[in-house]
Amino acid sequence: MMSPIYLAFTITTIISLSSSNWFVYGTEWKPSWSAGAAEEAEAVAAIPCSGHGRAYLDGLVLSGYEPICECNPCYSGSDCSNFSSNCSANAGSGDPYFLEPFWMRHAASSAMLVSGWHRMGYTYSDGSYISQLLVDHIKKLHKIVGNAITDERYIIFGGGSTQLLNAAVYAFSSNNNSSATPAKVVATAPYYPVYRTQTDLFNSRDYRYEGDTSLWKNKTDINGTTFIEFVTSPNNPDGKLTKAVLEGSNVKTINDRAYYWPHFTPIPSPADDDLMIFTISKLTGHAGTRFGWGIIKDKGVYEKMLTYMDLNTMGISREAQLRALKLLNVVLEGDGKEIFQFGYSTMRNRWTRLNQIISKSKRFSLQKLSPQYCTFFKRVRAPSPAYAWLKCERVEDKNCSKILEGGGINGRGGSMYDSDDRHVRLSLIKSQDDFEILVNKFTLLVANKG
Amino acid sequence: MMSPIYLAFTITTIISLSSSNWFVYGTEWKPSWSAGAAEEAEAVAAIPCSGHGRAYLDGLVLSGYEPICECNPCYSGSDCSNFSSNCSANAGSGDPYFLEPFWMRHAASSAMLVSGWHRMGYTYSDGSYISQLLVDHIKKLHKIVGNAITDERYIIFGGGSTQLLNAAVYAFSSNNNSSATPAKVVATAPYYPVYRTQTDLFNSRDYRYEGDTSLWKNKTDINGTTFIEFVTSPNNPDGKLTKAVLEGSNVKTINDRAYYWPHFTPIPSPADDDLMIFTISKLTGHAGTRFGWGIIKDKGVYEKMLTYMDLNTMGISREAQLRALKLLNVVLEGDGKEIFQFGYSTMRNRWTRLNQIISKSKRFSLQKLSPQYCTFFKRVRAPSPAYAWLKCERVEDKNCSKILEGGGINGRGGSMYDSDDRHVRLSLIKSQDDFEILVNKFTLLVANKG
Repeated sequence: MMSPIYLAFTITTIISLSSSNWFVYGTEWKPSWSAGAAEEAEAVAAIPCSGHGRAYLDGLVLSGYEPICECNPCYSGSDCSNFSSNCSANAGSGDPYFLEPFWMRHAASSAMLVSGWHRMGYTYSDGSYISQLLVDHIKKLHKIVGNAITDERYIIFGGGSTQLLNAAVYAFSSNNNSSATPAKVVATAPYYPVYRTQTDLFNSRDYRYEGDTSLWKNKTDINGTTFIEFVTSPNNPDGKLTKAVLEGSNVKTINDRAYYWPHFTPIPSPADDDLMIFTISKLTGHAGTRFGWGIIKDKGVYEKMLTYMDLNTMGISREAQLRALKLLNVVLEGDGKEIFQFGYSTMRNRWTRLNQIISKSKRFSLQKLSPQYCTFFKRVRAPSPAYAWLKCERVEDKNCSKILEGGGINGRGGSMYDSDDRHVRLSLIKSQDDFEILVNKFTLLVANKG
Repeated sequence: MMSPIYLAFTITTIISLSSSNWFVYGTEWKPSWSAGAAEEAEAVAAIPCSGHGRAYLDGLVLSGYEPICECNPCYSGSDCSNFSSNCSANAGSGDPYFLEPFWMRHAASSAMLVSGWHRMGYTYSDGSYISQLLVDHIKKLHKIVGNAITDERYIIFGGGSTQLLNAAVYAFSSNNNSSATPAKVVATAPYYPVYRTQTDLFNSRDYRYEGDTSLWKNKTDINGTTFIEFVTSPNNPDGKLTKAVLEGSNVKTINDRAYYWPHFTPIPSPADDDLMIFTISKLTGHAGTRFGWGIIKDKGVYEKMLTYMDLNTMGISREAQLRALKLLNVVLEGDGKEIFQFGYSTMRNRWTRLNQIISKSKRFSLQKLSPQYCTFFKRVRAPSPAYAWLKCERVEDKNCSKILEGGGINGRGGSMYDSDDRHVRLSLIKSQDDFEILVNKFTLLVANKG
């Protein structure tokens, strides 16, 4: 028979081990109400899709089981294992999947669990639509990276940088004087087409898109008309660090700084413009989150932009703000060294490889970018742009897109950027699969056509 | 001594229980990379805040420990346990916290865990900004509730219903004929003030706010000018089921159906208007998610609204869409019976209690609403509006807000709704704490002032 003492020990052990299934046991922790959401997310993440696609929690479901794999371009099949070699390279969109491997490596720190009752109300506890904690994170990030001055500046959030572009145009152009000439909105080609299409869309009495800055240089002093110049630095599509072209007391500048991160450019000094716009899309790669922010010097301009955000969408999604907070927390680990090193290495490697191929060709050329001292990396660093701004050099190749399409490469024609169709923008920030296909197509094209 | 068989059993039991700390054991599952996010969310949810506030994952943190409690109005202290009885009732905003207890009771099914790499790109796999799975859920919900026809209709998403209001105005007014008279945007007082303020904000050449429908009745046939009438049913602020006032081939109607849910109104029949707008804010109570949708008959109108959404914000946050999906899944359980029964009971109870108090007064009155057959509950049901539209009956009480403020009650004056200041809107959809304070203040006010 068992001794009473031994029996008691055994029972105690069984109870304590058994109870550890339900309560905290040493460093181990077991979820209660969050278990289902956590298990579901891990199950979806575990679907391999052959490394050429991914399954999502909100993916379409076939036959009631697991979400289907969403395959990278040119891959297909239920597990994305079929590669189609005669499929064209898709280098059109600016989907920033190049950072996806970084987030997969940081699965634990970047995951967020949202309870069903998380922030149901319209406002944060200070009555605003803007998370002050997230504002603090953004300011800390700019300080660490050294790419923008935020001290004594106002911070505003928008649905991507997109929504903030027009909020800024509104703030700079609105006035109570209905007889005033509409503000003239301008940019320098090649420029991001949304500046024009968005300004046209709203068809406002207060502003109007008026073409290229070159038309207005030294002509800005017309009856006090306001000029609003979009300045993108580094520029989309060509990656160059640019400055405003127009000068004068009635010229307002909207500085689109979407690409002013160490992934894409040396950071020579912190930007200190009156109105700067950033987006998480090109910082962490989360284009789908639709989270951008503006840094504004003037209180009146800031308040007009707040009014715009209130009446357009009543601020932006609390879930998007929580996600941005989570992601920035990871970015800030180790003072941002890891993500920017990863981003720069990836983009630098891609630019080098594309250059090696194009340099063998007389038919095509890429934009020239120079190494420059970067205050973030504390050394001179080579170019690593987000986009190739490719030129067809032969006189007869006036439609460069057509030439590339013949070689199975889809980009965006220069005329979209108010430039000429001798140029094509090719996105280098997509997935590694997309980049490999692009490189393969170019290798063949250059070998065949010179 | 212990028998060998008993010892073997004991050891096996110990090992199997012990190993269950690390691996799946029967129905028990242990998180790996999701553990940190799950633990963090549960820890925040476990902060009690005395039942008069809540802590959030993105709440401000004091002294580096846990997030601070964000207290309900009139409660304060680090754990929200201090009640201030001389604090005014805040019945201004439409924060829909009345549904928060429902989500706390459904913690497990409504939680969502978002991985760091969830939907980084701009588009879903079909190239759109709109989750088709969420569209399917929305259609299923309308079918179950019977409040809108969605077959052969187009569905579009926006940043709350707010963004869709102007998207609809844009779609109905934009044309390529720049010499056309701007469309006249109108509504019937009392109406939701954003219709006017938002329309004014954009100051478009294509449309202009032109006041109350009463000014234009039987006058809509002027040179083919387009009229755009906002119709809100049930109406905000007075909860009445309304119809369009203007008639004619050049009259377009934007039907704001934010409150057309069994919480707030009987559902006599499915709405089948050309353009209807809904929002999750008044369905599940998640105002902060900024998720709304439009149901549109005409393909051309739908496509114009898509263009508007693309150029304004490039669609809406993927996190907001995922959250909406999660929440609608819970709503759909048991064909929606549970949430709508909870919502109706809560709102009905509040309306009854407020009526009991006000009915004792000759100084104040509430809007009259009638019981009506509800096709969702399959019975005649009593009113349960989202807002009280209170009137001060005495001739001298021209500023009703002032009278209420004297009694410690803050609402929104009727002139905000283009009505008179003899009326005040009082929100009944806030937290139970807010409602109890409102009821207490009214009880005192009626007892003191009649």
